Amino acid sequence: MDSVDDILTQLRAFNQEREWNQFHSPENLAKSISIEAGELLECFQWTADTDARRVSGELADVLTYSFLLADAMGVDPLQVIREKLAVSAAKYPVEKAKGRSTKYDRL
Amino acid sequence: MDSVDDILTQLRAFNQEREWNQFHSPENLAKSISIEAGELLECFQWTADTDARRVSGELADVLTYSFLLADAMGVDPLQVIREKLAVSAAKYPVEKAKGRSTKYDRL
Amino acid sequence: MDSVDDILTQLRAFNQEREWNQFHSPENLAKSISIEAGELLECFQWTADTDARRVSGELADVLTYSFLLADAMGVDPLQVIREKLAVSAAKYPVEKAKGRSTKYDRL
Amino acid sequence: MDSVDDILTQLRAFNQEREWNQFHSPENLAKSISIEAGELLECFQWTADTDARRVSGELADVLTYSFLLADAMGVDPLQVIREKLAVSAAKYPVEKAKGRSTKYDRL
Repeated sequence: MDSVDDILTQLRAFNQEREWNQFHSPENLAKSISIEAGELLECFQWTADTDARRVSGELADVLTYSFLLADAMGVDPLQVIREKLAVSAAKYPVEKAKGRSTKYDRL
Repeated sequence: MDSVDDILTQLRAFNQEREWNQFHSPENLAKSISIEAGELLECFQWTADTDARRVSGELADVLTYSFLLADAMGVDPLQVIREKLAVSAAKYPVEKAKGRSTKYDRL
Repeated sequence: MDSVDDILTQLRAFNQEREWNQFHSPENLAKSISIEAGELLECFQWTADTDARRVSGELADVLTYSFLLADAMGVDPLQVIREKLAVSAAKYPVEKAKGRSTKYDRL
Repeated sequence: MDSVDDILTQLRAFNQEREWNQFHSPENLAKSISIEAGELLECFQWTADTDARRVSGELADVLTYSFLLADAMGVDPLQVIREKLAVSAAKYPVEKAKGRSTKYDRL
């Protein structure tokens, strides 16, 4: 299986060939993530019972732009997830957060 | 460095400990991705010149919920990116798409 | 009761006093609408059973930026709703769309 | 010119004829606002220089679902804008906020 580095290498080559880096400012990538997140949400607009293939396809777009933004910011996608998990663990201690969806500032 | 599988294992353990899987339906995760994408976009609301640390933190939230949705749908995050890249390569042939941000249906 | 014109007059005065028109490009207003739509959605992130006052407050932000964007584009907010309703009536004839949430291109 | 009440009457009749109220829970309307906000943002994805007619059409969708959500929550769309403007005036006093896009909690 490919690693994150392999995928990033493929994404970079794809965009370089097409000379698309000029469009991929962090701001434009952030807009793109919001746009694709909306398309993903559209799979669930009127019902929770949705088409798995369509969800995967839209999720792929969110993930692709998220990886490109990480790359543009010079951070590793897995590393930022890992760091945020440590932050969340501190904000949501198990004994307080267990079984509750309450936001940390109201826990 | 950890792999995607390691990260998914950590995310699953984090949520199981807190009994949060009950909240993580695909629909709720799709909503969460849109919500976090909005917070990421807020870093660029009035200016393209933004705070890199804040961007990484918000991007981490988008990535985390995206990984959780992939996991909930039983798909591999890197695999869906790779498959979508193949689709995009067919929609955007280099000779047509080079240097242009035009959508494929208007190329 | 105030009319739409009264509200627009108040919104314009509010922004002129603060010299905020420099920030209110159509693009920045479109970003702001997405950001506020995310905050509105957050009211429903984990449950459909939400706080009505909070929803009204977030909806107000979406509406405010939407009115400002209409104003920036030189269009009347009620007029664009009315025109779109005519388009939707043509796309969704009663006999086909009755009781169905299917998108027009699959009806 | 029609008033907000006229528009709401037309929107209600449109949805009743199609038996669409069953789909228009506050939660589904909030999702719909985010989805349409994403389509509006797509007009500005790669450039600030966009097609005014397309923007108006997408803005209409945001406004329509926002009016429907206001109606579903039993609040008046103009009234919620007016109330929020009073809140914003208190958060952003002219002497502090003039010419600055800084968020109130950092002013």
